[in-house]
Amino acid sequence: MATIKDVAKLAGVGLGTASRVINQSGYVSEATKKKVEDAIAELGYVPNETARAFVTQDNRIVALFLPSIHHAFFSELAYFIEDELDKNDYKMMLCNSSNQIEKELSYINMLKQNKVSGIIGISYNQIEKEINNSMPIVLVDRHIGEIPYVSSDNYAGGEMAFQVLRDSGCKQVAYIGTYTKTILTEVEKRKKGFENAAKESGLDYTLYLEEDPIKDQTVFLNQFLTKHKNVDGVFVENDLMALELVQLALEKNIKVPEELSVIGYDGIQRYGALRPKLSTIRQPVEVMGRSLVDLLIKRINGFSVTPAIHPVDYLKGETTR
Amino acid sequence: MATIKDVAKLAGVGLGTASRVINQSGYVSEATKKKVEDAIAELGYVPNETARAFVTQDNRIVALFLPSIHHAFFSELAYFIEDELDKNDYKMMLCNSSNQIEKELSYINMLKQNKVSGIIGISYNQIEKEINNSMPIVLVDRHIGEIPYVSSDNYAGGEMAFQVLRDSGCKQVAYIGTYTKTILTEVEKRKKGFENAAKESGLDYTLYLEEDPIKDQTVFLNQFLTKHKNVDGVFVENDLMALELVQLALEKNIKVPEELSVIGYDGIQRYGALRPKLSTIRQPVEVMGRSLVDLLIKRINGFSVTPAIHPVDYLKGETTR
Repeated sequence: MATIKDVAKLAGVGLGTASRVINQSGYVSEATKKKVEDAIAELGYVPNETARAFVTQDNRIVALFLPSIHHAFFSELAYFIEDELDKNDYKMMLCNSSNQIEKELSYINMLKQNKVSGIIGISYNQIEKEINNSMPIVLVDRHIGEIPYVSSDNYAGGEMAFQVLRDSGCKQVAYIGTYTKTILTEVEKRKKGFENAAKESGLDYTLYLEEDPIKDQTVFLNQFLTKHKNVDGVFVENDLMALELVQLALEKNIKVPEELSVIGYDGIQRYGALRPKLSTIRQPVEVMGRSLVDLLIKRINGFSVTPAIHPVDYLKGETTR
Repeated sequence: MATIKDVAKLAGVGLGTASRVINQSGYVSEATKKKVEDAIAELGYVPNETARAFVTQDNRIVALFLPSIHHAFFSELAYFIEDELDKNDYKMMLCNSSNQIEKELSYINMLKQNKVSGIIGISYNQIEKEINNSMPIVLVDRHIGEIPYVSSDNYAGGEMAFQVLRDSGCKQVAYIGTYTKTILTEVEKRKKGFENAAKESGLDYTLYLEEDPIKDQTVFLNQFLTKHKNVDGVFVENDLMALELVQLALEKNIKVPEELSVIGYDGIQRYGALRPKLSTIRQPVEVMGRSLVDLLIKRINGFSVTPAIHPVDYLKGETTR
């Protein structure tokens, strides 16, 4: 028996387009409509109610929830997500969750009620019970069951950061960051890649960690500088933290990079005036943003997808030798 | 004859709430619903079709369009707009226009078709013909007919910047920025305030301008530093441009602030690590964001409003003496 996929294939159109013709919802050009109707006639296609149900409700709105849009990395990611959605004729709702689970849940409910067609979610809350893989949702940096996610290659990034510090002559290295007991995120792979590379190399290393969320980042970083004077190279969990560490080190008259090399993670530095320019492991933000939309649209149209993990690269600045 | 406002007042609820009861659209608690129904009965209120028309379509979605969300000022403003909308039970659609007028027009069309309840717009395009004051739309920094807008007190900010440079001992000051022939924006008031204060004081001043958009900001700023070596204090149109000027000056071994004082405008600096920390005239971003939403909701509910101009303050950093 012919399916909607057979119709789409014969007509040479996407699944979403075929469904719009079948359900008479949304804009389709006359030429395209004819192609689909001809394919329906040729195959003797009869609409299947289940198939109708999940594509009928595509109202072309996708919701993005993230902790805060006022953040260099998230705002850049949001830019490319919106741009790619727009190219695919979707509009985007934006939710600053401020990490409040209730706000995130209200958007998940909108998805369940078909008020939005899909969700792209950046969440550090325990939303596992509320979402499942039958819903068109794609996450960033989170592993929840089978739900697809997009991330950068955090593990390789950690290894890369270690190698840079070692190759530039550092003798005692450290990783500065957080750990979490409650949720599984990609971010901890940065630490793992770094640590495993350090172990293999035999170089002396320290893990300087606090449970997420860090109570006072300035105190946390200052204590590191006071306690670990022998460390001459650090890989910091993200650029914002790394930038503060550099400033605090300079305030303590520690020369960067001569006495302390610093590498961050993200690649947020856009201002030409940040001095010294931060060395960092760069996430391919544009690629990730467009990849998130690509996976989500496939999910909206009923296809299954696998997580997309994108390569990182090292952006040398002035904080490494 | 009783109006919907009389009903709302007697029931002790907002106009929007009264309309939701009358139009049976949207969530209202049982207790509130009873209060409104009692008021309707007591006043003998009969729904007026015109009044119904403009509140019926409040689907609780507001669209924000701006050039790019990946921008320190715009992303901070968007954060507070979304937060204030959320507090008032509205969801927000985000559009990066990338200054493309077609994208802005498509959102204006959504407003005309009642697919969104209102628009907050940051636009540098000629959208005058497409919008008028019967539509619930509030702008940022733009003067288009009677359409309400929110801005910071750019003129006073320009005066303030001049006074800071003069009071800190600068002898030859300059304003660096843009001008535009086609649209009327608030930004040019920064230059006007600066210039008028300079004229009144009798201090020697220069206006170093290029027509917006600047072709190559680095070239533009480097030429200033080469041509105007005698200038010892500058007020730059915005923080991003000021930050680049500081870096370029330092690269040319010009001491900041000892040989050249620099003041920006916006107050975007959030990273502790920006060195030297930029002195700037700060826009009250949170106040402005919430003010935009306040004005828009009043417009959605049919009230008229006047532009809101918010005071700025001077944030002393390390780039002035």
